[in-house]
Amino acid sequence: MGRTLAEALIASRTEDPVAPGSICRVRVDFAFANDITAPPAIREFRRMGALEVFDRARCAIVPDHFTPPKDIASAEQLKTCRAFAREQGLLFWEPGQCGVEHAFLPEEGYILPGDLVLGADSHSCTGGTLGAFATGVGSTDLAAAWALGEAWLRVPETTRVVYEGTPSPWICGKDLILSLIGRIGVEGARYRALEFHGEALASLDLDDRFTMANMAIEAGGKCGLFPPDRDTLEYVAPRAKRPFKPVQPDRDARYASAETFDASALEPLVALPHLPENVRPAGECAHLTVDQVFIGSCTNGRLRDLEAAARVLKGRRVHEGVRLVVIPASYPVFSEAMKRGWLQTFLDAGAAVCTPSCGPCLGGHLGILAEGERCVATSNRNFVGRMGHPKSEVVLAGPLVAAASAVLGRVADPREVLGDDPAALRREEGC
Amino acid sequence: MGRTLAEALIASRTEDPVAPGSICRVRVDFAFANDITAPPAIREFRRMGALEVFDRARCAIVPDHFTPPKDIASAEQLKTCRAFAREQGLLFWEPGQCGVEHAFLPEEGYILPGDLVLGADSHSCTGGTLGAFATGVGSTDLAAAWALGEAWLRVPETTRVVYEGTPSPWICGKDLILSLIGRIGVEGARYRALEFHGEALASLDLDDRFTMANMAIEAGGKCGLFPPDRDTLEYVAPRAKRPFKPVQPDRDARYASAETFDASALEPLVALPHLPENVRPAGECAHLTVDQVFIGSCTNGRLRDLEAAARVLKGRRVHEGVRLVVIPASYPVFSEAMKRGWLQTFLDAGAAVCTPSCGPCLGGHLGILAEGERCVATSNRNFVGRMGHPKSEVVLAGPLVAAASAVLGRVADPREVLGDDPAALRREEGC
Repeated sequence: MGRTLAEALIASRTEDPVAPGSICRVRVDFAFANDITAPPAIREFRRMGALEVFDRARCAIVPDHFTPPKDIASAEQLKTCRAFAREQGLLFWEPGQCGVEHAFLPEEGYILPGDLVLGADSHSCTGGTLGAFATGVGSTDLAAAWALGEAWLRVPETTRVVYEGTPSPWICGKDLILSLIGRIGVEGARYRALEFHGEALASLDLDDRFTMANMAIEAGGKCGLFPPDRDTLEYVAPRAKRPFKPVQPDRDARYASAETFDASALEPLVALPHLPENVRPAGECAHLTVDQVFIGSCTNGRLRDLEAAARVLKGRRVHEGVRLVVIPASYPVFSEAMKRGWLQTFLDAGAAVCTPSCGPCLGGHLGILAEGERCVATSNRNFVGRMGHPKSEVVLAGPLVAAASAVLGRVADPREVLGDDPAALRREEGC
Repeated sequence: MGRTLAEALIASRTEDPVAPGSICRVRVDFAFANDITAPPAIREFRRMGALEVFDRARCAIVPDHFTPPKDIASAEQLKTCRAFAREQGLLFWEPGQCGVEHAFLPEEGYILPGDLVLGADSHSCTGGTLGAFATGVGSTDLAAAWALGEAWLRVPETTRVVYEGTPSPWICGKDLILSLIGRIGVEGARYRALEFHGEALASLDLDDRFTMANMAIEAGGKCGLFPPDRDTLEYVAPRAKRPFKPVQPDRDARYASAETFDASALEPLVALPHLPENVRPAGECAHLTVDQVFIGSCTNGRLRDLEAAARVLKGRRVHEGVRLVVIPASYPVFSEAMKRGWLQTFLDAGAAVCTPSCGPCLGGHLGILAEGERCVATSNRNFVGRMGHPKSEVVLAGPLVAAASAVLGRVADPREVLGDDPAALRREEGC
């Protein structure tokens, strides 16, 4: 019987028999934490008597949650990370030199096709974009991986998700993944691998896949996997920090379930408070006024996202009383978006353009919400109190919907701003 | 008997007799607060039964301290500010659309020569750069000024400060003002007006004057005043939001004291922990290693400052283990610095480039210090715990020294990086 991509990836990293439900001891290619999850991992690392990380070039700490430090507590956490990184010689970057871990690490070629990657952060599933088995673990498991270069995993069952047809230019990765979460719910893929297929993917940017793999966890998924294709290899080739070997699912793989979508019929979507499964067409939510719009995060803070937002915002101004926070997901994205003129577009539109970090996504800083405020955010979670006050609300959306909502001061479909002609999204004159 | 500039300015706004020590009731031209000081001012405004601000075009709230909001408390403060601004129709800008009040308001032509300006923030003396009597007040006094357009003031005595000679190109406004504070101490100008004169000023940028007026309060000064000259009027003319009438000191003005400096003999300076009066030549402090460098704030976050820092950082990289935080003082500065390529220079050097706000200066966010850490900062205060942990240290400096310290990982004179040829500061090819 053939293997799904998750099974094939695990099989390449274990000597144990691989079948859904079996427990396997696996070799780990890369293991990372952030400024919040690293300090407890460091404590556990000491407590288990470990002296050295298994491979300093395969262990990383990416400070991104509260950086530059927002208070003394976060400064102390960062100091702990820095000291451990120096002691061990593992990978570490100062604030300003990296970005959100799930954007920066793949972008810089640390996460590669065929890898088995553990990250002490729930959105570590983002690495599945490149055909890596990448998943989030707790700090204790991460400490063990740092020490041993090994971990154990229960092999997940796999749900095959197929997007047929060609989506309209108004559709981005966020709409595809929200359509899935809206259908199967936030527990619909609990401990499952999602494996994405279908011709619709070919019409999307690789950055759209990052959005989709990133949100696998919002359906409860263990990981969200894209079989590597030519686009993947083109992306990875100039970045890879070490050799890699892509892994593919077998043609006769057996899937536990399947979900099929007609991508050509999709509309720009939002997820209403307080769960990512509360999915509606953006155009049906015009009654929801907006206090803040946040464009950024490991979900939608990449070049494709900023370009889409810039298309909408070029020559326009945020609505009276709306504040717009734009946080490129990494310093390479910040730099490139500046070169392409998009940051100037955001400034001219009235946005606060911030240094790469997680920003307000997890209620950290740079745009926390007060009681009764509503934010349209390109991030991944809209739980109660996620971005601030328990009585604030987060509406999840892709960058086109978010930018359009900033302009109109309410939840909006991008076509309400740009008109119905998709040529507005493909202007060659830049933003 | 002639009048000093402070006396002449007050006399133009009162019917009362004006002499040092006398109490005068004055008309207020402009009155502003920030996201921290506005909420208590609003409470007092209500408590005194006021219904409307005296002139909505002359009252402003500039959110700059904790913006975009770093937590729920600061989000609630901002909400209070926004609601009051809407109710009253007074001047208000969302985060990203303004910057640090003392940079943004003069830059946008709200503070003008001849004005009497009250700000609910101690560095409101910055407005003295343009020949306005500008001073900091508490939130209660500000509430009264919002309600009445009036205030009372005790007329300060004036210390005349003269900078003779032509300073070397390595000297900036920060060095001039630190030389004064180093000599007279942090109480040396208590409740006095500082009035700046001398040929050295002509060789400096207007942005250097902003730095100097800004730090008048660090010697205890009530205000720091520059008699308006051609440079002032050239700066103000394209910006002024309303008519204005410059005021000059009389030639036979009587000064309570005088301080004279030979600016040609000045070296790049720093102020060591924990008082701005602990002034030393930067070149004598090479033993002080640095964990962080902060370039920004109402003191040194303007174009001239960023240009100086960019000259040092162009083609260089921050020292291993040093993090560099650059925060342009306002969104026009951010935008212009981006156009001129300086933000790219900072990014390439490894800096975190943040959206305009006070940042870590007052311990707010975006670069708070942990125990035992030392920061070279272009800001204005190095009190115990000012930027974070009570056992952290702040060394004050101008942008050249700060940037050089970032490159060398210790307190440094800029000539240690750029060599002794001042042409390195005047390169035409941009940064």
